[in-house]
Order: sequence, then structure tokens, then C-alpha cells
Amino acid sequence: MTYRRVTKTDVDALREIVSADRVIYPATTHYDHDQFKQVRSLPDVAVQPQTNAEVAAILRYANEHLIPVTVRGNATGLMGANVPMAQGIDIDMIKMNKVLEYDPDNLTLTVQNGFRIRDINEYLADKPFTYIPAPAMKWATIGGNASTNAGGMRAVKYGTTREHIRGITVVMVDGTIQHFGGKTVKNSSGYDLRDLIVGSEGTLAVITELILRLVPRPPVNLDVLVPFVNVKKAISVVPKILQAGLVPAGLEFFSRETIKYWENYTQQPFMDHTGDGYLLVTFDGHDEAVVQRDLDKALQIAKDNGALAPIRMGDEAHRVAVWKTRNQLLTAIQQTTTAIDEIDVVVPISQIPRVLDKVAALQDSEQVRMPNFGHAGDGNLHIYMCKDDYSRAEFAGKVDRIIRQLYATARKLGGEMSGEHGIGFAREPYFEAYYGQDKVQLLQKIKSVFDPNHILNPYKVFPTVGPNRQANRSLDVNDIKPKQ
Amino acid sequence: MTYRRVTKTDVDALREIVSADRVIYPATTHYDHDQFKQVRSLPDVAVQPQTNAEVAAILRYANEHLIPVTVRGNATGLMGANVPMAQGIDIDMIKMNKVLEYDPDNLTLTVQNGFRIRDINEYLADKPFTYIPAPAMKWATIGGNASTNAGGMRAVKYGTTREHIRGITVVMVDGTIQHFGGKTVKNSSGYDLRDLIVGSEGTLAVITELILRLVPRPPVNLDVLVPFVNVKKAISVVPKILQAGLVPAGLEFFSRETIKYWENYTQQPFMDHTGDGYLLVTFDGHDEAVVQRDLDKALQIAKDNGALAPIRMGDEAHRVAVWKTRNQLLTAIQQTTTAIDEIDVVVPISQIPRVLDKVAALQDSEQVRMPNFGHAGDGNLHIYMCKDDYSRAEFAGKVDRIIRQLYATARKLGGEMSGEHGIGFAREPYFEAYYGQDKVQLLQKIKSVFDPNHILNPYKVFPTVGPNRQANRSLDVNDIKPKQ
Repeated sequence: MTYRRVTKTDVDALREIVSADRVIYPATTHYDHDQFKQVRSLPDVAVQPQTNAEVAAILRYANEHLIPVTVRGNATGLMGANVPMAQGIDIDMIKMNKVLEYDPDNLTLTVQNGFRIRDINEYLADKPFTYIPAPAMKWATIGGNASTNAGGMRAVKYGTTREHIRGITVVMVDGTIQHFGGKTVKNSSGYDLRDLIVGSEGTLAVITELILRLVPRPPVNLDVLVPFVNVKKAISVVPKILQAGLVPAGLEFFSRETIKYWENYTQQPFMDHTGDGYLLVTFDGHDEAVVQRDLDKALQIAKDNGALAPIRMGDEAHRVAVWKTRNQLLTAIQQTTTAIDEIDVVVPISQIPRVLDKVAALQDSEQVRMPNFGHAGDGNLHIYMCKDDYSRAEFAGKVDRIIRQLYATARKLGGEMSGEHGIGFAREPYFEAYYGQDKVQLLQKIKSVFDPNHILNPYKVFPTVGPNRQANRSLDVNDIKPKQ
Repeated sequence: MTYRRVTKTDVDALREIVSADRVIYPATTHYDHDQFKQVRSLPDVAVQPQTNAEVAAILRYANEHLIPVTVRGNATGLMGANVPMAQGIDIDMIKMNKVLEYDPDNLTLTVQNGFRIRDINEYLADKPFTYIPAPAMKWATIGGNASTNAGGMRAVKYGTTREHIRGITVVMVDGTIQHFGGKTVKNSSGYDLRDLIVGSEGTLAVITELILRLVPRPPVNLDVLVPFVNVKKAISVVPKILQAGLVPAGLEFFSRETIKYWENYTQQPFMDHTGDGYLLVTFDGHDEAVVQRDLDKALQIAKDNGALAPIRMGDEAHRVAVWKTRNQLLTAIQQTTTAIDEIDVVVPISQIPRVLDKVAALQDSEQVRMPNFGHAGDGNLHIYMCKDDYSRAEFAGKVDRIIRQLYATARKLGGEMSGEHGIGFAREPYFEAYYGQDKVQLLQKIKSVFDPNHILNPYKVFPTVGPNRQANRSLDVNDIKPKQ
């Protein structure tokens, strides 16, 4: 068995399912990459459904005809999870972007999967409730966020995306529609398939609707930038803050070295030049005095442990400025080099310094620039590798060696491969070494239960037993080019 | 194929695996029931392992010899989930009760599955952190809590048990040991098998160790008993409190009718006699003034919506007294009748009054006493059915009719069969009608991936395709007696 390519007959069938103006054939290069553009593969056709029934009909058709299907939100992923590696049909969710229900009685917002994080924020702006998870990338769709269980910057206090999704509607590969979870707070009724599908990167079923959990919007948000003589010193303060009973909404870290990228990118000086390492500490809540007091306690702990003079974001303009800097770090790094790759390991928070030691050692031994920053409150690091003047092959070799060693380090420290970006296509070759053959076999069997013909997002997350696997996997990730 | 009964040879093998003094053969009637005693079935043998390796060896042996295995914590369940319906081996976890690691740097506590909720509370009493989930039954083991995703009384603010389990170690049916999740806050690395196994009621794998999430213990806890003219009036206030941006730690409801059971049981007057319906409102936090202010706001909202004079629990003695009453309600109800059964549906919180209407109607039409109380903040109701003078057969018929109608109501309102007690053996016959054949087939296939010989906790949660099913299921649940 091998995957079918899409024929003119298939395209006619798809035009019958959705209207002709929502079938893009041949697919444009818009559909061949994600944000990193390291992996490229062009689908045969892209379709833009608007309803569950249309998604169901597309999947039923594809499953009957063994045509691979990849789902795409806004393609802001970094691991190639939404790149259609086996060509076939790309389901573009951009037109499934409706609010289905705002229910203040039950504190839920039900939306279609193509609704973006910024759309959610705008929709809720004049309402007393907010959706908590805060990924840096506001153009990402909520469906994409759910597919990787995108974590964001408030996980230490509020948990990850998973904890804020009450229910999902999914279309199974045979076209049946299922609801897992719902508006209820509790559920002890059979296996938790909602959380199995959240984070499965489009390999089990297609999420089409999500019931999001809302919470009262905390009116008070205080941010302080705390400089230290170096990043390790900054990070070592974090467990002390948490042990004091303080629960910050955010605890971001970055180094002066990383800030320099931003200064070069924006041609502006950063607001502080006293430190070589920074914590950006956020406390939120419903009472100004209490939030202020908790923040003061945290700053005292920081001071007792070597912090330099903290900079309080006294007004909204300063807050916006410091977060703009934080959210532009990736772009600033990307501008400095010919290509970029990333690893987003997560470790127990007390182990972050040991990962940073390893990064410093690898930077030296491989002679690759590795700027980094991350979420000190939840142990999730963003470590970049810059291609610079290396050839694609040289860079691929270096990236491979760096990744293997960083994964080995994270594994030894009780960490996981990815805190929020997922495994996708780019990290699939490392999955089995990290988690073992037994676990991979278990995942393969679960995959086969949901998707017996392996048409859903082939070659992603872990080694699968679908057709053509060896052929595709023998390609160097960095050398895959559009097939068309 | 049919399940094997345990032979003398098997018992000798089990004595080799664990020491002879930890093999109970023949098993005593201690092992044939859970807290409700509605379902009884005696295992052939009970074993008390102390380590993962012993559990692994037991499972490997049982799987090779097709002997059914049921895991037992402290048997505080109500749905027969831990009753060994196919006899075989009962794994009694009471001796796996160690703390493995307290890690204040990463805010985790790692324990074996037989550690009880009260053990956790005692262990943490002199530490600055607490484990949040608060099931009423403190004798329950954490392993049992994880198996049903026991919800408890703080779900509205803090989520259910699931959100407080960072990682689990499980023994698979073939004896391999797996770790799902860990100490990290985030994880986006393959399917979420942790949450698949949490809540699976011992049908997929055996949880042996749990990494629990700790949070700083909120030093301030304020409780107020708010009387209303009736329960529906009380419950209707809840969405208004939540919409005002207030997040209580607990929102329990009960009626005067239910309180009368407690008064008869304890021969004491309850602390209030002004109302026919009550809310027990709890606010917690780290600042006395703020907690007090939030509470005051909630009370004002209650007053504006018909609350009678609230009773503040001014000191620890009053707090203990009111919670003792709340925690004794089930026992008080049990004392008044010959047998009891329960349903713990969960619905979106705004729909609770409609469930209570249905309960009132069924009470009349079936002439069965149905005292009830529940968690108004998360939509989870505890509705009891008293056998009184009905014959077992009559009662079984009435329970069946009541359950069918309440499930139909909950389903129509977007609810789930169980909020925290699980499905077990007692509610398995209703599962397929509630969730549909497609979903059941999906669960069956997942079950078969983990437990291909169907030896783990047979006849539970949903109809399985294991051996002997029809034979056992044809028995009336209420008439199953010890087989030995």
C-alpha cells in the first residue's frame, strides 16, 4: 500500500463537498511550510471547509481513497507539524473562525478551530472574563494551540492550554463526529479522550470546535524587570520565590546576550543595561494592594539573592514595551542569520541551570550561536541554533549533534522533549531514543485505533507504521524541497 | 476463551513473587465489596505487593495465565469499580503506602498509590505546601482517587484530581513499567497517556506511583453558611457570584430535608433552622482582608437574590463543625434505610435546578426517597435512592428507571454520567446508551491496546468484548452474591 496522490476526479469530488471557490488546486506554496520554513512539502490540493459536515465529508472521502490529510491553522508552528509531508489534501481551517456561543452562566466560550488567539482576546475585550493561556504568537489559531497543547507564559500559575479546554468536537477519520468533554467542570465517565486528542498534533482526529474555559479577568497586572549579574543567578531565585508561597503569573528569563539581538533588530537601547541576566516577573490578581505586596516580597527575595536594582513597569506604556521586547526576541534572532532551528525542552524548574550549562558547552564545541530565553517558572527553555555561514549539510550535522545531546541532558534531568512546540516532523527522528520502543509501540497502536489507514498527518511525532515511511524519512529534514 | 480461576499452583507462584505473609488465600470477604456493598464478588486470592517489581511480576503472571486482576485501594468507591467481578487476583495496595520524595524546589510530592488522602494531609501538615483536591472521603487512597479522577469540593477554583497529578508510574499488563508525565509543568511530547490512564478505573494499567502537584497552602479559609427559602433559590445565586468575578474555593449546597437526616443521625440540632436550602460558601487565599472582602461581595450578591441571614464560621470550631456536618451527610442518609444507591451526574452549573426538578418528579412517581446534596460550583450532584421496605427486585427496578431518566436529563442538558465517582460495574449497563456505540467501540479498541487479554478489571466502565461478559452481565447487579 502507498498513499494516493490527488487526481482531477478527487478535486471534482472536493469541489462538490465544499464550494469550488474554497478548493485551491493546484495548491500554492503558501501551503508548503510553517513559520520556520526548514521543512517544505507541497500538498496536492488545499480545501477551506466552514462546517463540521464539510470536514466530515472531506475526511470520509480521503479515508476511502487513502489520500493523506494534513490540517493547517495559521501555520505558526516551528516543528513542521502542519507541513503535508505526504502531499495529499491540506485542510485549511482559516474559514472556520466563528464564535459559536458565549456562555457567561457557565464561564465558557465555544469557538471553531480557526479562531485565533488575538480574535479571542478581541472578542473578550469588553467582557469581564478572559481566556488565560498566553502563547507569544497571537496569530496562532486555537485549533493549532490545542493540537500542540501550546503552553504560553502563565503556566506556573494557571496551567497549560489543556487545562483551559473544557470540551472538543472532533471529526474522526471515518467522518463520524464526536464530542469529548463539554461544559462541565468535572467528568469521571470513561476514558479522557479530550486530553488524548489535545496535544496529538493532528494525528488522531480533527478538532473542529472547542469549548474554552473562561475566568474572571484579573484587573491588576504588575510587571518588574529584575537584572542579575548573570542568567544562572536570575534563575536560581525562582524556586526561592515559589517556596515562599508566592505564585507569579509569569517568570520569564533572558540574558543580555539575547537582548542584544533585540537591540540590533530594533536599533533601540533596551530599558536596562546593568545586568547580564534578567527575570521578568509578573504578578496578577484582583486586588492592587495584595498584588503589590506579593510582588514586593518576591523582589525582596530576589534582592537577598543577588538581584540588582529592579525596574518596575510603572504604567501601561512600560508594560507594553517590555512585553513587546519579550515577544520580539525570536524575530530579532531570526533576522541575524540565514536559517534557524530550535529546541524547546522542558525540565523540572530547579534543573534549568544545568541545561544552560550544557548549552554553553555545546555552543563552544559546535561553534554554533545558540541564543536562548524561556519560562523560568515552568522549566521550558527556547534554545535557538543559528545557521550563519555553514552549509545546509554542515548545519544539519551540527543541529543533529546538539539536539541529541540536549535531549540526553533533559532526559537525565527528568524533563520532556517539548514543553509547548510539539514534536512535529522535525523532532520525530529523536522521539524513540528519548521515550523508548515500548512507548512508541503503544502510541503506534493508539494511532491505529483512531486512524487505521494512517492518512492523518503522516510522518509526525513518532515513527509510524504507515506506507512510504522509510522513503520519506531517509531525506534529510533540512533538504526537503517542494515536490511540485 | 474464558477467564481462569486461581489454582493452588498459581497461589504458590504468587507466594514466590511476594512473601507468603502477603498472600491471602482463600481471600476473605474483606475483598468482596466496596463502600456501598451493593455488588459483591469474592476474588480467589488477594496479594499485597510493596514494590513496582512485585506488581510487575504479578501482572506478568496473570496475563500469561489469563487470570483476571482487580486493583484495590481502600475500597471507598461507590460504583463497584474495585469489586473483582471475574474473581481471580485482587491486588491490595494498602502496603504500597510510602512517600518516595518531597521536592520543595519543584513543588512536588511523589508517593506510592496506597498512600491515603489523610496521609497526604498529615505528611504536609508542617510544610508550607498543600495538595489541593479535597474528596470528602479522607480514607481513600491517592491511587483510587486517580483511578476515578475523584473531583472533590474545590474544583471550581482549582480543578479536579487530574490537574494535580503531574506524573504517574504505571505497570502495564505485560509487566513493563512506564512513566507518563513527570515533574515538569508543561509537556507537548506525544500523546497524553497520563490523562488517559487517570480516570480509567483500573482497566488500562496499574498506577503504582504518583507525582503530585503542590501549591502554597492558603492560610486564610473563610466559610459562611447561607440559608435560602429553598435549594433552587440557593443554587440560582451561584452563576451570579461567578459572573461577578469572584472565585470561591467551594460552593456546596444541601437542603433542610437532607440536613434532617444529619440531625436524626447525630441527635443534634443543625446550626441553623431558618432556611430550607443552603449554600456553604468557602473563600480561601493568602490575604485575610481580600478574602474577607470577596466573601462580603458574594454575600451581598446572595442577599440581593433572596438569601436569609448568613452565618459566618467565626472560629475554627465552627468551621470544623459545619464541614463535619457536610462530610457526614452520606453516612446520615445511609443509616435511615436498608440499602442505598447513588447517582453523581454532573451538568453545566446553570442547569442544576433542572436536574433537581427531575429528582422531585421521580421521587413522586417512583415513591423512592431521594435525598441529595452536591457541589453547586461545579454542577456535580449526589442523588441517593433509599431502598427502605422495597424488596431487592422492586428496588432494583425503581433504581433502574430512575437512573435511566436522570441520565436522559443530564445528557439533554450537556452533562456527563459521573462527576467524580466513576462508572464502575454498577453504571456500566447505562454507558452505551449515554455515549453511543461509536464511542464505546473506540474505548473498546483502546482498552484492547493496553490489555489485549482483557484481564484488567473485567466488566467495568463500558461493555467490553472480554470473555464471559454475557454470563456475568445477565445477573442482576443487586443480587450478585459472593461466589464462594
